Amino acid sequence: MPKSVSKGEQTLHVSRDLKMTAEGSNYADGKAILKDAFQRMVTLIELDHVINGSYQGLPLLASVNVVVHLPGDELNFGVDESYNLSVPATGNPIYAQIEAQTVFGALHALETFSQLCNFDFTSRLIELPSAPWAITDMPRFAYRGLLIDTSRHYLPVPVIKSVIDSMTYSKLNVLHWHIVDEQSFPIEIPSYPKLWNGAYSYSERYTMDDAIDIVQYAEKRGVNILAEIDVPGHALSWGVGYPSLWPSATCKEPLDVSSESTFQVINGILSDFSKVFKFKFVHLGGDEVNTSCWTSTPRVKAWLTQHGMKESDAYRYFVLRAQKIAKSHGYEVINWEETFNNFGDKLDRRTVVHNWLGGGVAEKVVAAGLRCVVSNQDKWYLDHLEVTWDGFYMNEPLKNIKNPEQQKLVLGGEVCMWGEHIDASDIQQTIWPRAAAAAERLWTPFEKLSKEWEIPVLSTRLARFRCLLNHRGIAAGPGNMLNASSTDQSKESCARRGLQGAKLSSDKTEEEVKTNEV
Amino acid sequence: MPKSVSKGEQTLHVSRDLKMTAEGSNYADGKAILKDAFQRMVTLIELDHVINGSYQGLPLLASVNVVVHLPGDELNFGVDESYNLSVPATGNPIYAQIEAQTVFGALHALETFSQLCNFDFTSRLIELPSAPWAITDMPRFAYRGLLIDTSRHYLPVPVIKSVIDSMTYSKLNVLHWHIVDEQSFPIEIPSYPKLWNGAYSYSERYTMDDAIDIVQYAEKRGVNILAEIDVPGHALSWGVGYPSLWPSATCKEPLDVSSESTFQVINGILSDFSKVFKFKFVHLGGDEVNTSCWTSTPRVKAWLTQHGMKESDAYRYFVLRAQKIAKSHGYEVINWEETFNNFGDKLDRRTVVHNWLGGGVAEKVVAAGLRCVVSNQDKWYLDHLEVTWDGFYMNEPLKNIKNPEQQKLVLGGEVCMWGEHIDASDIQQTIWPRAAAAAERLWTPFEKLSKEWEIPVLSTRLARFRCLLNHRGIAAGPGNMLNASSTDQSKESCARRGLQGAKLSSDKTEEEVKTNEV
Repeated sequence: MPKSVSKGEQTLHVSRDLKMTAEGSNYADGKAILKDAFQRMVTLIELDHVINGSYQGLPLLASVNVVVHLPGDELNFGVDESYNLSVPATGNPIYAQIEAQTVFGALHALETFSQLCNFDFTSRLIELPSAPWAITDMPRFAYRGLLIDTSRHYLPVPVIKSVIDSMTYSKLNVLHWHIVDEQSFPIEIPSYPKLWNGAYSYSERYTMDDAIDIVQYAEKRGVNILAEIDVPGHALSWGVGYPSLWPSATCKEPLDVSSESTFQVINGILSDFSKVFKFKFVHLGGDEVNTSCWTSTPRVKAWLTQHGMKESDAYRYFVLRAQKIAKSHGYEVINWEETFNNFGDKLDRRTVVHNWLGGGVAEKVVAAGLRCVVSNQDKWYLDHLEVTWDGFYMNEPLKNIKNPEQQKLVLGGEVCMWGEHIDASDIQQTIWPRAAAAAERLWTPFEKLSKEWEIPVLSTRLARFRCLLNHRGIAAGPGNMLNASSTDQSKESCARRGLQGAKLSSDKTEEEVKTNEV
Repeated sequence: MPKSVSKGEQTLHVSRDLKMTAEGSNYADGKAILKDAFQRMVTLIELDHVINGSYQGLPLLASVNVVVHLPGDELNFGVDESYNLSVPATGNPIYAQIEAQTVFGALHALETFSQLCNFDFTSRLIELPSAPWAITDMPRFAYRGLLIDTSRHYLPVPVIKSVIDSMTYSKLNVLHWHIVDEQSFPIEIPSYPKLWNGAYSYSERYTMDDAIDIVQYAEKRGVNILAEIDVPGHALSWGVGYPSLWPSATCKEPLDVSSESTFQVINGILSDFSKVFKFKFVHLGGDEVNTSCWTSTPRVKAWLTQHGMKESDAYRYFVLRAQKIAKSHGYEVINWEETFNNFGDKLDRRTVVHNWLGGGVAEKVVAAGLRCVVSNQDKWYLDHLEVTWDGFYMNEPLKNIKNPEQQKLVLGGEVCMWGEHIDASDIQQTIWPRAAAAAERLWTPFEKLSKEWEIPVLSTRLARFRCLLNHRGIAAGPGNMLNASSTDQSKESCARRGLQGAKLSSDKTEEEVKTNEV
């Protein structure tokens, strides 16, 4: 739901030869980001049905003029994503107008435009009802993330690209790629070429060129890739290629804190990462560290004693040293919240704390002056199948944070699609539509978000969004949207799509739907 | 598994600029069927990973020469689908050779070719191992079907197209489109424009142009569309637009047998169908007819009495009259088996009986001299989630049919993805990979099919095929392939793909896999 919307009563029909123009724009589109996005948008609105009606005598929308004020197209955290979209009701020809500071704002505008369009079964054309439209829009949070996990199940590159596509439909902008974990190490690290010996199999691997391809694919769609290596826990698979990273052959994680080569390998990985993953942040994990291998392995225990460290000291030492390495490669660091919970005052002040264990953490983090990303597992873990979409929707990142300066420290939030129980066959239906509920929480101004008592209206709108995803080939599941049989769900969900079904200033919409009912 | 395969030990690398030539071919490819299929094939083999290695010094496969002997490209039942594919190990340049009677055989050859190819992580090129290859292939059955049901849940057109794509990967060639049923009437019938008032909603409909689009999309891929209208039962939704088709407002199916307008509507539908659905067969249903509305509705009961008909007579009268209408539009008719079970001797001798209730029917049908398609629900209903892939594989259409003349009357078989409990979000993972197990049963010569004791080998091959589907963006599920945790499944399933993993004349394959393990 945009920041501000007004609409009218005129139905336009979209030309099959819809053009994009750039009168008044300062953006040269050298990488064809805008041109390709426009073409994808046209493909999407024309995907559903054969369009072969006659435009004769109908109000025709002939083109979209896109004005981008800034010439640059470096995507990163905090880039201006705002846009204005206006679709007049009259003109000869009629053209829509998009205005944005950056090309990435313009991409969002094109997505919104696409969601105003429907196939019209009477004219057999694409219609754009309810013109004139005037939409002013910008995100509430700069960080709107989705985590995928390619260690617990490998995800083929085309699947990752499909996830990125689907993210743009609800304006998520950070794909947190939890690449490696205990179970497998699927990615090539040129500096340490045996690391991906920890992959599940010969073919379940990503070359570094694949990673570059994914980053570029995402950037062209306004999506940042946040790469994670989770240290020192969750790293057993590293030792398949380099067994010396294990404390011992029988006690394999966390990574050996006593060994300099451990930090050399981390340095090698982050050095390689820095050439590929250009997002301002890297994620260094730091969660669920069971340090018992460090004390049960004589060599490591001796090192602890020698350095006067308890296990907790060594954990802190490891995390802080890894942070320093990341900083040396130009990154700011995100760590899971255990690092804050255990030694928050020792963390680099630029650390972003990634909440996951539960609620109430963000307020402590920002009170301590650190930044925070919210993913409390009770509400925003997509592998928690029992959490319904309204649970996702109602999870407020700024809960109990009233101080405006502290509010600014909450960068945003992220829904997490952990990979233990999903793979290429069901990832999309597990992510969607629940991720879209969180996406609106992260995008829309707080005062425009639906309240508890507006859930039924929201439900209809989200069901339509699910239908939009299905029509675009994204296998979004029903997501417990309605207490109805599966047959009835279908009936309810696709009656009408997108913003057209939104509860806006008037209740015109319902009337329109009725008019169009067969 | 092809009819005949031999292979060698040479690994080739496939040129990034792979060309198709047509030296010696009689086929002009005016509709670009072959050209587009080749382009799709190249896209598929290059989809997974970034290909940027150097060919220097490597044996390079530069082109595929496709010889098609027949100039025509009319797809229909019984078209020659055979092909030969040879990939030599030497040459300068090396080129593969495809030879087929029809373009549709050549499409199968291209699909087989694609499954010989893998991304090679060492060279960063597409490799084609085990040359020279000599493959001679043809289907065992001419009818290899998959049913989809767009009445119980609407399926968007892009989803249907994706199902068609996936069918070609296992060489299925008939999409049985169960368009209409009790729950909804989603398709436009120009002759009776209110029929699709029985759709779930405004947007959950197909225009007749959409149907044409689907038929053309399928034909270009060698897939026939078998349209079904199921009469006289399963037709409640017809009366939403034309209530006079119901026996009464309170007793709504079967269709009113006493009314001439019922048969006029059927005639209108089949007349419209005949302009769009060019497959030799149309499916007229005829299953699960509960005739009680006919006797409980006074008007209809009076008509029965007047015509000296019992309910069973009226059922037969309806089916036979509908058959005649279909024949008048040039169709041969497929009916569900209840028509045969109830009045087999009265059916038109060209009727194809579609078995579904259980085993043992096909032998009776062919003994009676009629043709049969096998879909016994205990083994080939995909909505029966408890039937595992090996159950699908072991279901033999010719069971207990020894007479060669009777064997010829079994046209083939079909797996059925009924729509009560699936929709766009999970149809692919419910169809695949189990449909592929049936597809091999229907394609491969009987003597080459895996036996019970070869299930473990077959399991590995099918798991790899599932992985191939996932890499192509088809959300094939694990399909109970292995008694292992989901994490382990992934580990097993993607080690190597396609025919490369087939158990052939030598056990070279396993050795190769080991060589390539990281």
